[in-house]
Amino acid sequence: MSLAPAALLTARLSALRARLGAVDLTALLVTGAANIFYLSNFRGSAGALLVSPMGEALIVDARYTTAARRLCETGAALEEMTVIPVGSSYEETMCTTLRRSGLARVGIESRNMTLARYDWLEQTLGSSGLILERTSGLVEAIRLTKDQYELALLKEAGHRVSGVMSEILSRLRPGKREREVAADIDWAIRHAGFDGLAFDTIVAAGSNTALPHARPGSRVLTTGDLVLLDFGGVYNGYCVDMTRVVSLGEPDSVAVKWHEAVCESHAAALMVVKPGVKASDIDGAARAAFEDLGLGAAFVHGTGHGLGLEVHEAPRVGKPRHGADPEDVQLEAGMVFTVEPGVYLPGEGGVRLEDDLAVTDGGYELLTDVPLDLVVV
Amino acid sequence: MSLAPAALLTARLSALRARLGAVDLTALLVTGAANIFYLSNFRGSAGALLVSPMGEALIVDARYTTAARRLCETGAALEEMTVIPVGSSYEETMCTTLRRSGLARVGIESRNMTLARYDWLEQTLGSSGLILERTSGLVEAIRLTKDQYELALLKEAGHRVSGVMSEILSRLRPGKREREVAADIDWAIRHAGFDGLAFDTIVAAGSNTALPHARPGSRVLTTGDLVLLDFGGVYNGYCVDMTRVVSLGEPDSVAVKWHEAVCESHAAALMVVKPGVKASDIDGAARAAFEDLGLGAAFVHGTGHGLGLEVHEAPRVGKPRHGADPEDVQLEAGMVFTVEPGVYLPGEGGVRLEDDLAVTDGGYELLTDVPLDLVVV
Repeated sequence: MSLAPAALLTARLSALRARLGAVDLTALLVTGAANIFYLSNFRGSAGALLVSPMGEALIVDARYTTAARRLCETGAALEEMTVIPVGSSYEETMCTTLRRSGLARVGIESRNMTLARYDWLEQTLGSSGLILERTSGLVEAIRLTKDQYELALLKEAGHRVSGVMSEILSRLRPGKREREVAADIDWAIRHAGFDGLAFDTIVAAGSNTALPHARPGSRVLTTGDLVLLDFGGVYNGYCVDMTRVVSLGEPDSVAVKWHEAVCESHAAALMVVKPGVKASDIDGAARAAFEDLGLGAAFVHGTGHGLGLEVHEAPRVGKPRHGADPEDVQLEAGMVFTVEPGVYLPGEGGVRLEDDLAVTDGGYELLTDVPLDLVVV
Repeated sequence: MSLAPAALLTARLSALRARLGAVDLTALLVTGAANIFYLSNFRGSAGALLVSPMGEALIVDARYTTAARRLCETGAALEEMTVIPVGSSYEETMCTTLRRSGLARVGIESRNMTLARYDWLEQTLGSSGLILERTSGLVEAIRLTKDQYELALLKEAGHRVSGVMSEILSRLRPGKREREVAADIDWAIRHAGFDGLAFDTIVAAGSNTALPHARPGSRVLTTGDLVLLDFGGVYNGYCVDMTRVVSLGEPDSVAVKWHEAVCESHAAALMVVKPGVKASDIDGAARAAFEDLGLGAAFVHGTGHGLGLEVHEAPRVGKPRHGADPEDVQLEAGMVFTVEPGVYLPGEGGVRLEDDLAVTDGGYELLTDVPLDLVVV
C-alpha cells in the first residue's frame, strides 16, 4: 500500500499547527479516523492521535499496536511519533495521556466525537484542571485541498474505476438479479487493485431506479429496464465514485428524455467549475438546467460531494443550508468532488450520471472517463 | 428483503416507552441508524426518528423519502408513523419537528450524536425552552436480547456464512494474492444471499496473520503459509462474522501448537456460556486457557462482541473496563455474540478461530458450523 512520504506528513502537521495557533491552541486530540490517517499514515477502525508541542502520540488498541509500531520502524510515520497502547479503554488512555502531557488546554474535534465520549472525558479530566476546547474541521480544512501525492492517487483511482465501469457496461445482459450484478461489480473493483469498496454498490433496475439510494435486491434485470449502476472503490485510502445508466433494449422516449435532461444538467454544472466559484453555485447551475426542462422537482438531492479519504467529505455541492455543518466552500485548485445530477420519478424510474473531478487553475479535470451516452445493450 | 412484522415494531416501541418512563421521559430523538431500523423498518445511511406520545416521526432526506413512504403505504411501518422530509439540514428539521411537538423535554442518544450536532441543537433550541436530556443505550438495551424473528434470521445467516467458509476453504490454493482471495470471498458472500459485507474481509497470509486486523494486500499465498480468513455478511440487516485458518502444505510444529492453544481457549470460553454469567467471565476463561499454555501475552484483544444489526454491538465480551461504554453484561437467553480467541506473535504469525452463538436457556447454540480443525490444503 502506498503511504504519504514523511515530508508530506511534516507539511500537514505544520499546516495543522498554524491553524491551531490561529485559534489559540497548541494541541489537538484527533479522533476522526480519516484525519488520523492523513496526519500519521495509521489506518484503523479506531484510534486517537494527540498532536502537541511534544510531538505526536498515537493511541491504538492491541489489534493495531504491531501495525502502528511497524509504521514507526519502517520510517513511514514521523520519527517523533510515539505509540501508546490502550489500557482499559480508549477514553481512559486518552485521559492518562492528556494528564501526563502537562497541557493546560487541548482541542477536541467536535464533529468526530460523540457526546457520550465528551461527557466522560470532561468529567474524568475535571479535577485535573485540563480544559477541552471544541474545534471544528481543522484537519478537514487542510484535507479539502489535495496535495500532489493525493491528486496522483485520485487520478489513478478515477482511471481504474472507469475501467471497471466500462467492463461492466459491456457485459451487462438481462437475466441476472440486481444483487448478482452487484457481486460482479464488487469482484471487479477488487481485481482492479482497489483496497475495497467506497460504499455499498447500487444496482437498481426498472422502477427501482426511482430510489436514489436503492439496495440491490432479487429483482431480475429484464429487457425494457433501465439499470442504474453506482459504485466506487478505495485506492490506497482514497475514494472515487461513479454512476452510469444502461438501457436493456431500446429505451422508451421518456427514458431518453430523462437521460438527456441529466446530461444537460451535468454539462451545466461542469460549465461553472473553476477556482473562486462557490460550491452552491455549481448546484444552482445543475438545478436551473432541470427547472428549464420542467424537471426541477425530480432532482431531489445535492449535486455532489467531496472525495478523498472519505467518500463524503467537503466540499458539499448543494444548496446553502443551516445546520451543524453549513459550510459553502469557495472552490480552489486541488479540490476534488463528484458531479451527479439525477431525476427520480417515484413509481416510474430515474437516471443519475456521476463523474469525479479535480479543480485546476483553469477550471477542472475529470478523473473519470466513460462516455455519458445512454448505453443500450 | 425481510422486515420485522408490525406487531414486533409495536412491542419494541412499548419496551422503549417503558424504559423512557423509568428515566422520567416520554420522548426520544433516535439518531443511531441501527436503532432507527429496529424501531421503524427504515434503513438508510442517515435519518432520525422522534418517538413521542404523539406517535413516530421519521425524518429523512430526499434520497430516502420515497423508500420511507413506501414502508408506510405497504404496512411495513407502523400506521401512525409520519415521514418528515429534511428541509435545509437534518439539524434544522430536527429543531422544527421538536418545536412543533410541544414537548418540554426530549431524550437524545448521547452515544449516537456528535458533540457538534448536540451543540447546534442545544443552541438553536435554547430560546424555545425545550430541554434535551442525555440518555445512553436505551434502544441498545432492548436490542441486546434478540426476539424470535431476529434469532431466525441470525441462524439462517450463520448457516449461510458457514457455507461460504466451507466452500472457500475447499478451494484455497497457493498462487493467488490476498486481495484476490478477498474478492472471491466477497463475491461468494453476495451469491449466498447476503445484503452485503458486514465489514472489510480479512485475508492474511504468512507473517501477516500476526496482525489481528490485517488488510488483504498483494502478498501471494505460498506453500508453507498459514492463511487467516475472517469475513462476515449482513443478512436482511443482521450481521454474522467468522474466522478460520488454513495451512498451505503441512504446518510446522509451531503453527500446530498455536492452533491447538486457540482451540483450547475457544472450548474454555464456550464451556462457561449460559444465562446468568457475566460477559467478562467468558473472556476470563478464554484468557486463562492461554495463560496456562504460556501464551497469555499473545492474546491481545477481547474474546468477542455482540452481533445483530451492527457487527460490533453489546454484549462486549472482554475484560471489565472504565470508559464511556463500560458495560459488563450478564448473559440472558437470546443474546448473540462471537467467541474469537487468537494468538499473535509479531513478525511470526498468528491464529484466530471465531464462531457465533446465541445464548439459550440451557447454555448456547452455535450459529456457525464449520469444523475448527486446522485445514491443510
